[in-house]
Amino acid sequence: MRDSTETGSIDTLMDAIGKRARAAARRLALAPTDTKNAALLAMADALVAATDTILAENAADLDRAAEAGMAASFVDRLTLTPDRINAMAEGLRAIAALPDPVGATVAAWDRPNGLAIERVRTPLGVIGVIYESRPNVTADAGALCLKSGNAVILRGGSDSVRSSAAIHATMIAGLTLAGLPEDAIQIVPSTDRAAVGAMLRGLDGAIDVIVPRGGRSLVGRVQDEARVPVFAHLEGLCHVYVDRAANLDMARDIVVNSKMRRTGICGSAETLLIDRAVADTHLLPLMEALREAGCEIRATDEVRQRYPTAEPASDADFVTEYLDAIISVALVDGVAGAIDHIESHSSHHTEAIVTDDAAMAETFFAGIDSAILLHNASTQFADGGEFGMGAEIGIATGKMHARGPVGVEQLTSFNYRVRGNGQTRP
Amino acid sequence: MRDSTETGSIDTLMDAIGKRARAAARRLALAPTDTKNAALLAMADALVAATDTILAENAADLDRAAEAGMAASFVDRLTLTPDRINAMAEGLRAIAALPDPVGATVAAWDRPNGLAIERVRTPLGVIGVIYESRPNVTADAGALCLKSGNAVILRGGSDSVRSSAAIHATMIAGLTLAGLPEDAIQIVPSTDRAAVGAMLRGLDGAIDVIVPRGGRSLVGRVQDEARVPVFAHLEGLCHVYVDRAANLDMARDIVVNSKMRRTGICGSAETLLIDRAVADTHLLPLMEALREAGCEIRATDEVRQRYPTAEPASDADFVTEYLDAIISVALVDGVAGAIDHIESHSSHHTEAIVTDDAAMAETFFAGIDSAILLHNASTQFADGGEFGMGAEIGIATGKMHARGPVGVEQLTSFNYRVRGNGQTRP
Repeated sequence: MRDSTETGSIDTLMDAIGKRARAAARRLALAPTDTKNAALLAMADALVAATDTILAENAADLDRAAEAGMAASFVDRLTLTPDRINAMAEGLRAIAALPDPVGATVAAWDRPNGLAIERVRTPLGVIGVIYESRPNVTADAGALCLKSGNAVILRGGSDSVRSSAAIHATMIAGLTLAGLPEDAIQIVPSTDRAAVGAMLRGLDGAIDVIVPRGGRSLVGRVQDEARVPVFAHLEGLCHVYVDRAANLDMARDIVVNSKMRRTGICGSAETLLIDRAVADTHLLPLMEALREAGCEIRATDEVRQRYPTAEPASDADFVTEYLDAIISVALVDGVAGAIDHIESHSSHHTEAIVTDDAAMAETFFAGIDSAILLHNASTQFADGGEFGMGAEIGIATGKMHARGPVGVEQLTSFNYRVRGNGQTRP
Repeated sequence: MRDSTETGSIDTLMDAIGKRARAAARRLALAPTDTKNAALLAMADALVAATDTILAENAADLDRAAEAGMAASFVDRLTLTPDRINAMAEGLRAIAALPDPVGATVAAWDRPNGLAIERVRTPLGVIGVIYESRPNVTADAGALCLKSGNAVILRGGSDSVRSSAAIHATMIAGLTLAGLPEDAIQIVPSTDRAAVGAMLRGLDGAIDVIVPRGGRSLVGRVQDEARVPVFAHLEGLCHVYVDRAANLDMARDIVVNSKMRRTGICGSAETLLIDRAVADTHLLPLMEALREAGCEIRATDEVRQRYPTAEPASDADFVTEYLDAIISVALVDGVAGAIDHIESHSSHHTEAIVTDDAAMAETFFAGIDSAILLHNASTQFADGGEFGMGAEIGIATGKMHARGPVGVEQLTSFNYRVRGNGQTRP
């Protein structure tokens, strides 16, 4: 425990936020689907109606970012436009249109003694979301938590504090209109970093799970320090393996798309593995296609003997998430070699195999323990929307509870509901 | 980090155990169902064949317990007999007969772009099991982890070390006969408590989840100190609520069975709540039935006005897991009062409502966030076997990943397997 007055007052503030969230969570767990959806639709309308206010607050955040000389990519993530506000509103409407996971029966069976057992989805309780510059997370995460019956405590970045507050006000308007408690979606009103520390300690049991949204340093800090479960991925070190039985045209399309469609997302490929058996036929066309698409190639000596203009790859290249137009390339001995390489280098996020041999794909699927495995498809499909889950609050690489895209279903727990007619246990 | 030579050597030992477990886990994840089942059946045979050896080792443990003057209940948990060894073998055969959860498709759907998505069960990886005097946990936990494709690190109590080692030898015999790695089921060969600390820190990422099996002090220590997820319940503070619409005969049977069938298990009831609306008709018969069954009654003043021979209950009684023939009793205002009492006093393990009013039961189910909720049935059904899950490694009251009875399915994770024919993301 720290004991400065400053931190003490932050702890007091955060504990009060936690208690209010816990109380709101009990009410949300009982909220009918229609009420939650009405709130989400009202939020969407309020968001659009508040466009001018939100843009004005965002302009103030952008001014500070400009004064601080922030990088262009940072400024881009922070910038709101009427189109981006409309997209946020559409996101809220899409979440309203999703099936309500709460109360859904996941499994049901009867016992020989007549007991009828159901496994039913229930909210997790209170979700803590810690994010950086993107103010739209305020709306997305708030809405996903509401739909799944969870209260949420949002802690946005200090750089986007005014934008996030303006968006948050429209969420509160929606909650109020629908008769739901304002405390269902709280935003931490302090930019003190001690607030994050308090959330990571779980606010004395008030927070059930933490979701960090941001760069590697934020996620790493959360994973290291959190005393509550975390849904996150530290990095997406994704692989594409081109097998001896790969169709070359398909391989070319999938490799280029996996790497180059968007290089800054977690599902973009960082390493290309090619079956040594088809190095003679497949290596050069794949290298040329990547280079034509503007990709820098860092390769092993063996690859460079065949394609000398590639840069040499160090061991570190094969465990680096470039998030840029750079790819590391190596040859492996068939699917077994690919599995060995991936299992020892991957971040267990997403891996793809290109092959016309279905048995090789099954071997690849069985041998690799990553959240998402693809056969003959681009790693860039690693996304809750592409999976048909609607929006996602993030992608998890842990193996506990949630794995892969985290949508509304993954934000629920479950319990057992047993119906009898007087059964006692012998 | 401690730096005594002793602890240093324990850490070295434990790290080596963790690395071997992780390597074994990769092989187990690929083990065919038939191979795992062959190992389990061979273990059962080896266990029965080793009855004399196991009893001799158990006798040595019992001698030490007698010298140490251990309590009768402790000695009972430690004692093995030919019948108990046969029961352990039958348990292994029952686990062999369960469906293999690994590789099972939990969900499957197609996307408009032709991608076929499956969600498939995968092993968690490495389970750490920390237990006390019961040597049979060696066989039960080892077998459940094997069936679910996980490697396990067992750390039994120092009091049962020779019994557990003798049982463990038969597990190794079964693994070897089936061609599975011995490291799939390791038992920590040290009784140093530092070994437990090392496991709770996760052995440098080698342990995915910890399951404590034992009393409150063990579970509490594990929950407080573990840096990896824990499947556990600290206590089972279970409630029975008798509603105004309860059939009195049914209520009597369920209350007595919930409390008295076995008082020492986590699913036994500790508190009886009676709807104030039926205090006149239901209270005395329920009190008399409990007392006839040999139960001590601790009640609120309001209850004692109607049943003066009850002992007075303090506030502490309503948050005490007696694990004994004692029950606390209070009146509440209908199902809403029951929900308020339970949500503020329960350990969220198991609660029952007795009522002929189905709508009241639904209100009770919706309003209480416990792992198991029962309508017109005894709380003593809170058990994986009674749920039809086969054996259980424990019962969890957490809301993440596993909740309620933890059987082979709950010892798995999942991943997504996506099959395409060349799809790239636009």
